[in-house]
Amino acid sequence: MLSVNEQALDIFNDIFEYPEDYNAAAHELDNGARIVDAGVSVPGGYRAGRIFTEICLGGLAEVNFTMGQIKGIPMPFIEVSTDFPAIACLGAQKAGWTVKVGNYFAMGSGPARALSLKPKHTYEVIDYQDECDAAVICLESDHLPNGEVMQAIADACKVEVANTCAIVAPTSSIVGSIQVAGRCVETAVYKLNELGFDTKKIIAGFGTAPVPPVRGAKNAMGVTNDATIYHGQITLTMEAPEIKDYLERIPSCTSQGYGKPFNEIFKEAGYDFYKIDTSLFSPAEVVINELSEGAVYRVGEVNPDVTLKSFGLQ
Amino acid sequence: MLSVNEQALDIFNDIFEYPEDYNAAAHELDNGARIVDAGVSVPGGYRAGRIFTEICLGGLAEVNFTMGQIKGIPMPFIEVSTDFPAIACLGAQKAGWTVKVGNYFAMGSGPARALSLKPKHTYEVIDYQDECDAAVICLESDHLPNGEVMQAIADACKVEVANTCAIVAPTSSIVGSIQVAGRCVETAVYKLNELGFDTKKIIAGFGTAPVPPVRGAKNAMGVTNDATIYHGQITLTMEAPEIKDYLERIPSCTSQGYGKPFNEIFKEAGYDFYKIDTSLFSPAEVVINELSEGAVYRVGEVNPDVTLKSFGLQ
Amino acid sequence: MLSVNEQALDIFNDIFEYPEDYNAAAHELDNGARIVDAGVSVPGGYRAGRIFTEICLGGLAEVNFTMGQIKGIPMPFIEVSTDFPAIACLGAQKAGWTVKVGNYFAMGSGPARALSLKPKHTYEVIDYQDECDAAVICLESDHLPNGEVMQAIADACKVEVANTCAIVAPTSSIVGSIQVAGRCVETAVYKLNELGFDTKKIIAGFGTAPVPPVRGAKNAMGVTNDATIYHGQITLTMEAPEIKDYLERIPSCTSQGYGKPFNEIFKEAGYDFYKIDTSLFSPAEVVINELSEGAVYRVGEVNPDVTLKSFGLQ
Repeated sequence: MLSVNEQALDIFNDIFEYPEDYNAAAHELDNGARIVDAGVSVPGGYRAGRIFTEICLGGLAEVNFTMGQIKGIPMPFIEVSTDFPAIACLGAQKAGWTVKVGNYFAMGSGPARALSLKPKHTYEVIDYQDECDAAVICLESDHLPNGEVMQAIADACKVEVANTCAIVAPTSSIVGSIQVAGRCVETAVYKLNELGFDTKKIIAGFGTAPVPPVRGAKNAMGVTNDATIYHGQITLTMEAPEIKDYLERIPSCTSQGYGKPFNEIFKEAGYDFYKIDTSLFSPAEVVINELSEGAVYRVGEVNPDVTLKSFGLQ
Repeated sequence: MLSVNEQALDIFNDIFEYPEDYNAAAHELDNGARIVDAGVSVPGGYRAGRIFTEICLGGLAEVNFTMGQIKGIPMPFIEVSTDFPAIACLGAQKAGWTVKVGNYFAMGSGPARALSLKPKHTYEVIDYQDECDAAVICLESDHLPNGEVMQAIADACKVEVANTCAIVAPTSSIVGSIQVAGRCVETAVYKLNELGFDTKKIIAGFGTAPVPPVRGAKNAMGVTNDATIYHGQITLTMEAPEIKDYLERIPSCTSQGYGKPFNEIFKEAGYDFYKIDTSLFSPAEVVINELSEGAVYRVGEVNPDVTLKSFGLQ
Repeated sequence: MLSVNEQALDIFNDIFEYPEDYNAAAHELDNGARIVDAGVSVPGGYRAGRIFTEICLGGLAEVNFTMGQIKGIPMPFIEVSTDFPAIACLGAQKAGWTVKVGNYFAMGSGPARALSLKPKHTYEVIDYQDECDAAVICLESDHLPNGEVMQAIADACKVEVANTCAIVAPTSSIVGSIQVAGRCVETAVYKLNELGFDTKKIIAGFGTAPVPPVRGAKNAMGVTNDATIYHGQITLTMEAPEIKDYLERIPSCTSQGYGKPFNEIFKEAGYDFYKIDTSLFSPAEVVINELSEGAVYRVGEVNPDVTLKSFGLQ
């Protein structure tokens, strides 16, 4: 079985060795943990955003940018393709690890999760866990982790702290915008998993979403999620005729609250995350090719108006 | 002169060494022939499809995927660019070698043809033949070749059987869909060659076609060809003012039967391939830049409705 | 600080070593200067065009092609992304060096300029200059430079002539078309610099323009510039709230003469370059994400009709 940490380590090593090429910065902590700053004290950019996303997907996906259009307005789009949707998206990319050590807080994602098994249930349903003596984690945070944080990550992953690697960027940064949009395929796979579908049956995924503009820390979560909720387009190839029973529940338009930028929904919910219908976190449009019956299904559609409104362009 | 087998061998060696990265499987036969299964007993995927296509084009083309839209429906498109259209498309990619050994049957394509000269006439008109002690063949088949098949390929190519390499995928598979769509530029070059045009005068080609969904063995030939017939878009750069006399006959819309999914045409022909107007196997739309007169021509256009009908989306 | 010459040299070395792969030719002059012909006596193509553009941007950008559409007509588009807009575009890509030695004439661009400081003012405003013992220059010319020309370049760059490298293509060639379209981001950055904006505040740029057809030496300058003037789309990310005061003056539509193919404007000006409003040399459409206020601005729009007219397609 492929090791998501081993694959990601190759990619991490390159940005760690040549951080200048990526508008990033590399730090080795006293305990040997290695940190790449991709947006906390540095600007980052497209290169660093691509690398962050590739690492986050455990090296099991291709990530590209292309210029797209939303109602004629040019906008870079991220494109993600993977032949390992369950492992890459749920086993690595999913933001399933809340890293909280002392005062430090970050949303953790990426291959290290396949060592710490956060959460364990995910690894049972996808029947995957990694064996690797190095752990590579992606941290969505405004701050870099210190040695204590990395030690806690090492402990959870059961590796030496000197073999831990972290790449870090705030939500509100270029890399933050890119890496959240880069979760477009994951959103579809995640939703299917939540609905009880066996995601091991998905053979390949291809997805795209606009890279959302950076609109400040307060707006970042909403704007970055809107890119996928209102303009994410995903195609999945699978061998699972039972998908017919899940189709209607996949796209974001089936959720309560759909139709407004996330930040408006959040405001109306009194900024109480738990009052929001979580089924909103889905892609706008999904096309599925089911192989055993040779069927093709399409559900949902993009919503350019809400997307542009969220992006400050309408 | 560049060796298509040498270029393809570099690419083959990578997938043979790391088949897991591609959802593929590698086999070395007793006689030393090396086989990559990219869809017979394995799922394959985008990575394997790209590699199959690159090998098939003799390493003389770039192959990418991007998300396109057909009437607003998202669909991955393959994009192929080559600076060696005659050699890459006719000298390598063209499916010009019917491999039939004992019970084994496969459509053969790829660089090995430039050693076995199948068919010889092609290599005369493009003035190319390869010299290489290794032969790399692409096989479109539901079965892997055995040692006897590979020995016959070695004999035809006049190389040691231990120096033969085959990559194999059924038409009805993800890789099958990708590699047939990946013939979009070839279809234009092939058509021009059939019309008697000297394809050596084509300097560069860039083409795209949707990656058709996998719709089962019975439908596969029709659906995969429809991707190019009804939605293939090709641009060619050439130095050949005489192209004016060929323009009208290039696009698929000039053939009898045009306007329905291939499988319907095939059915109406009583499933008799020889009753079908072969000029149908052409791209939907071609834009040509002729350098000596600085002219630009456009013929044909895409047919989204028939494409979606063929793909099961309308 | 990154060295644009060092980065470009890596790319140059590859095409110099394997020119056949690029439909190019490599020459080493008696004085050791190395020349790659990418369109003077060879056809060139997409690969050579990409390499020329990457070298021209000092290795600090990614360059890709994708099939786009103008009013439904397929056309390859170049896509350029850079995380170093000021250095890559103004410090390297800008055609700021008129190389005139004896009878030889060429528009010089690329990293060598960061050694010869042509023009010096540019390097002061972007606060960059390179230190490298090799110089890599891009020459837009119908002729290859001889030893004397390369010696003059070496002298201006203060490097040994044996450490000078040139890649050369005429404006009217495939590579010429690609590399001029590849200046789409540069055009936006250049315009802002001309307007007095501090381009060091631009963090990232992503741009696209159609690869214009080759329409002969007389038309080449006009057609290649029209690709960006009438169909260039650029997105910039920056930290500079003062951008508000520059927005209206960025796009080409604000210039006198806008609305006709460049060659018509040129003709009406009696072929007197100095009578043309230089503010025309701007991209058609620009979207800007300003980080400190989280703002998004859009100015200008593409003009498909004039683009197609210029390209000979309407």
